[in-house]
Amino acid sequence: MEIIHRKNEVRTIIKEAKTRGKIIGFVPTMGYLHHGHISLIRKAIADGCFTIVSIFVNPLQFGPDEDFQRYPRDLVRDLSMLKKEFVDVVFVPSTDEMYTKSHLTEVRVPVISEKLEGKFRPGHFTGVCTVVAKLFNLTSPDKAYFGWKDAQQLIIIKKMVVDLDLHIEIVSVPTVRDSDGLAASSRNKYLSEQERKKALVLSRALQKIKEMVELENITDSEVLIATGKKIINSEDVELQYLEAVELENLEPVSVIKNNTGILGAIKVGKVRLIDNIIWE
Amino acid sequence: MEIIHRKNEVRTIIKEAKTRGKIIGFVPTMGYLHHGHISLIRKAIADGCFTIVSIFVNPLQFGPDEDFQRYPRDLVRDLSMLKKEFVDVVFVPSTDEMYTKSHLTEVRVPVISEKLEGKFRPGHFTGVCTVVAKLFNLTSPDKAYFGWKDAQQLIIIKKMVVDLDLHIEIVSVPTVRDSDGLAASSRNKYLSEQERKKALVLSRALQKIKEMVELENITDSEVLIATGKKIINSEDVELQYLEAVELENLEPVSVIKNNTGILGAIKVGKVRLIDNIIWE
Repeated sequence: MEIIHRKNEVRTIIKEAKTRGKIIGFVPTMGYLHHGHISLIRKAIADGCFTIVSIFVNPLQFGPDEDFQRYPRDLVRDLSMLKKEFVDVVFVPSTDEMYTKSHLTEVRVPVISEKLEGKFRPGHFTGVCTVVAKLFNLTSPDKAYFGWKDAQQLIIIKKMVVDLDLHIEIVSVPTVRDSDGLAASSRNKYLSEQERKKALVLSRALQKIKEMVELENITDSEVLIATGKKIINSEDVELQYLEAVELENLEPVSVIKNNTGILGAIKVGKVRLIDNIIWE
Repeated sequence: MEIIHRKNEVRTIIKEAKTRGKIIGFVPTMGYLHHGHISLIRKAIADGCFTIVSIFVNPLQFGPDEDFQRYPRDLVRDLSMLKKEFVDVVFVPSTDEMYTKSHLTEVRVPVISEKLEGKFRPGHFTGVCTVVAKLFNLTSPDKAYFGWKDAQQLIIIKKMVVDLDLHIEIVSVPTVRDSDGLAASSRNKYLSEQERKKALVLSRALQKIKEMVELENITDSEVLIATGKKIINSEDVELQYLEAVELENLEPVSVIKNNTGILGAIKVGKVRLIDNIIWE
């Protein structure tokens, strides 16, 4: 496993792998890896890719009052996890390597970036799209792997790829959950034991909705959302949104069917958590 | 010379040329070709490139009150000119081929896109950057050719390429002028004979400034700009701006030196024209 820090090293290694006929699989991460990331990496390796993982806590996607400074970091642990997975290359750039002091350019996907998470994290997805576009240009992958946990991010990245004529297949991988049902996230580390118990209400509400749809055939969004909100509001957490939407454009839907999902966010103490159920 | 209309044809031809070890040279145009375009193409061919020229009048870079509909088009003439230059590929996509109905993504270079032209054409450079990013992703060129005539565009594209880690060399080519001094532009077609005479005041003013700098060693921007404005205002045209700026960031400069330029725009009747002098 090669660990590299420079853009020109990425280009050289990727070019060389392409010359050898390799399919490039790219997994962008902010590090502090968990089972969710590992499932993306295993998918890339199962697909036979020459697999490059990036670890970069991207300042551009954090708001001024958000957790950029305290976002969990543990490179030693990350690298040891990646080595066990037989990753080919880990790209760990510094902020100065990724952004010049005079950086200006933004890649934006308006409309769908302003919904749901966008209302609570203005500018977040522009930061995500900008860094992902840069990383795509550096790694020129054939396939890039994203988790359904960050459903809105996945949908926005897919849209960006189509709109900008990037020749990359975006591979989506199901959300990985801990045994208690909580969706795997680096931010779960912020939760105290008591907060974690409270946080479970989001996955519990989504699980209840899933059962109503799939076992009881209840597909009326209003009924499902009302049930979900009732469950969430029974716990000492702040419900930020719970919405049934079309997956392609994140427009509200009145009936759950294929290509819709229910996306939610709560705040537990100071910690924001997101989760969803998707009908692909 | 191959004439193609589809994105997948571009990818196939470029991939095949790269396999044969070719360096890809890309010249994006909006058609209605003139000597300025031809000088870009000749530079690409002189550089030994497998040369692809795009002809696409990009709706995204025209404001609602601008000349998208009436922008001059003459594909038959363009193709015959390109054939004589031994261009390898001409890519002529339709608007529907370039943009899906649900297109959303924008590539923006804030700050420098809002200066000079940006004040008169809000959103223009976002339209330019978005289509150029798409065309770059489709043609994956090693080199792309832009004229100094559109100095702000050239500077913004260079910035976008650096900021987004696009692995493309932007080659800049000097402005080509007609024998009367008017900078070559497809929009010159809009000018009546009388308007054309009036329009010459811009290149005349810039030429006077050039002489003051290079022959008389006058480098005080205030003096140079005042002289230029006086010349322009002596004619029946509307001066929109005439500014001395740093080439890299388009910030005003008080003294002309290397890496500065004086950029101007006038309106003659209903026709906007731009021109500049550059000290590289």
